[in-house]
Amino acid sequence: MKKYNFSAGPSILPEFTVKKTAEAILNLDGIGLSLMEISHRSKEFDAVIKQATERMKEILSVPEGYSVLFLQGGASLQFSMVPCNFLNTKAAYVDTGVWASKAIKEAKLYGEVNVIASSAGSNYDRIPTNYAIPGDADYLHITTNNTIYGTELKKDIDSPVPLIADASSDILSRPMDVSKYALIYAGAQKNIGPSGVVVVILKNSLLEKVKRPMPTMFNYKVHVENESLYNTPSCVGIYACLQTLIWLKDLGGLKAMHKLNLEKAGLLYDEIERNRYFVSSVANTDDRSIMNVTFIMKPEYKELEPKFQEFASSRGMIGLKGHRSVGGFRASIYNAMPFEGVKALVDAMKEFENQV
Amino acid sequence: MKKYNFSAGPSILPEFTVKKTAEAILNLDGIGLSLMEISHRSKEFDAVIKQATERMKEILSVPEGYSVLFLQGGASLQFSMVPCNFLNTKAAYVDTGVWASKAIKEAKLYGEVNVIASSAGSNYDRIPTNYAIPGDADYLHITTNNTIYGTELKKDIDSPVPLIADASSDILSRPMDVSKYALIYAGAQKNIGPSGVVVVILKNSLLEKVKRPMPTMFNYKVHVENESLYNTPSCVGIYACLQTLIWLKDLGGLKAMHKLNLEKAGLLYDEIERNRYFVSSVANTDDRSIMNVTFIMKPEYKELEPKFQEFASSRGMIGLKGHRSVGGFRASIYNAMPFEGVKALVDAMKEFENQV
Repeated sequence: MKKYNFSAGPSILPEFTVKKTAEAILNLDGIGLSLMEISHRSKEFDAVIKQATERMKEILSVPEGYSVLFLQGGASLQFSMVPCNFLNTKAAYVDTGVWASKAIKEAKLYGEVNVIASSAGSNYDRIPTNYAIPGDADYLHITTNNTIYGTELKKDIDSPVPLIADASSDILSRPMDVSKYALIYAGAQKNIGPSGVVVVILKNSLLEKVKRPMPTMFNYKVHVENESLYNTPSCVGIYACLQTLIWLKDLGGLKAMHKLNLEKAGLLYDEIERNRYFVSSVANTDDRSIMNVTFIMKPEYKELEPKFQEFASSRGMIGLKGHRSVGGFRASIYNAMPFEGVKALVDAMKEFENQV
Repeated sequence: MKKYNFSAGPSILPEFTVKKTAEAILNLDGIGLSLMEISHRSKEFDAVIKQATERMKEILSVPEGYSVLFLQGGASLQFSMVPCNFLNTKAAYVDTGVWASKAIKEAKLYGEVNVIASSAGSNYDRIPTNYAIPGDADYLHITTNNTIYGTELKKDIDSPVPLIADASSDILSRPMDVSKYALIYAGAQKNIGPSGVVVVILKNSLLEKVKRPMPTMFNYKVHVENESLYNTPSCVGIYACLQTLIWLKDLGGLKAMHKLNLEKAGLLYDEIERNRYFVSSVANTDDRSIMNVTFIMKPEYKELEPKFQEFASSRGMIGLKGHRSVGGFRASIYNAMPFEGVKALVDAMKEFENQV
């Protein structure tokens, strides 16, 4: 039975990425060595990381004057690296969920943190708007997509101060105007590759603002100067990221990907609205994510939730359980989830409606 | 042609590890999902990390009261995490090479660093002895094996203060008395698995000494409490580490491994001494590593070095170039290098002697 993996992350990856990575682990490009065994200073790996960097720049149309890094430690380490490098006096943060809150907590170690907007009071059901960005903040930090609640900031906002975004769960899902950002970071394990890699895209001029002594591994300048090879990176992870970037380019790049993502999300949201058993859970309609779709059973059918979970599972759909703070279901329909996967879920919802 | 990979790291891994990891990337345990796609909170990955932890404890005979962690960022991040957690007043370091020097540099950010012994003056040709360990130091930091020079501390020393060791390049090469250490860390990419994973073995009671506020990702206590799953770990990397631990156990554990390593190193060192073209490069005889064997051509044959490099390379031997600070050759003969690989190198040295 074909499995459909709706996990929030690590999550579904393109079959192309999976196959190419498995092949390279057995024998990289026919050189008779495993991808896991080659030196990160070898010409083979040098080609991998250079291509991954270039393809990321190409696909996201990264402007001149920006660097792309492939580091370790996930978004969780970025929560600290960002303020350690750039919070000299005070920073502004928008609180849109658990992950944004974690970023805020880590930043407080380095200086004053001004939470200029939050939707915590309504269980993070929306992306706050109409907030004032203090012109004297060192930067503004946002989280572009919130996996738990299924909310997403679907545009590139204007900020009078350097804009820093955690785009872990929606990077590469749509064209982005990178020039509006000073720094974008994203754990790879949703739309790019396996866990253990975090992608950082940053404006080089930002590095001049760094004043604090810090661990060398925290220093973006060191990583930029060493082109992600200050220390041994996750070679397997970066290779897999490159494969996804190749797949994405072949598929038509971010415009084509975005169109497909809108279709997938549209199909599922329409069914949630139509089906008499289901209803959107927490996300405000305008802020609904095209990556993580959260839904529950209507209060009067609440007791049927385990039954639907089982029903979907028996059809090969896994990872549909909603986060405990929201309940119900969450379908993570990242780039690699094919249209047919969403169709299968929608069909299961329809069948369930007819059978119950 | 069979390739023999003498790279210093990432380096040769057991064929078992390579094959099992490639299989799991295609389809983990037949569940129809890739190892790269499963949630780190899934029951499948939970079994992987629990087994990896237990096997590491079993193979290294880790005593009660210790934790084993699988983290990200390599030894380079440990250089900062160790002093951030444990350097409250002053720490003692032994300087045995470039990597030890890097650890020293990072520690200085957190307090007084007392370099109690160094072999820098003689290009790190030896492991210093006869140094006094200050009883008021928060800890003593050592590097057990120095890949560049091919020197190794082959015993578990006694220390009146907590002993912390970077054992990146010789962990699992011999039985170790873990009870003598407060903390051992090791980048996986020599004797354990692919790059992107660092193993930390630490005495839980040490965690009571932590006083400094720090990034959550730096906090060993957080990682211990979350059993390496505070954030998303390198799932592929940890799976591969588990395979190597299974392979090592099947092979007879550390006693058998150590015996084989002594035989391999003995064979190569004997040939270096016998062969009229070669000579040990920098390492003092008593401190010669059984993991990294460094040698050069005798001064009068110096110009033949590129020729031997090519000769070995044409026989499938790669990664033999010595580090630029030592020159000549370096054969890294980690656990996964079979006896036949060392034999092939020795045969090449003999043939070269006869042909030139």
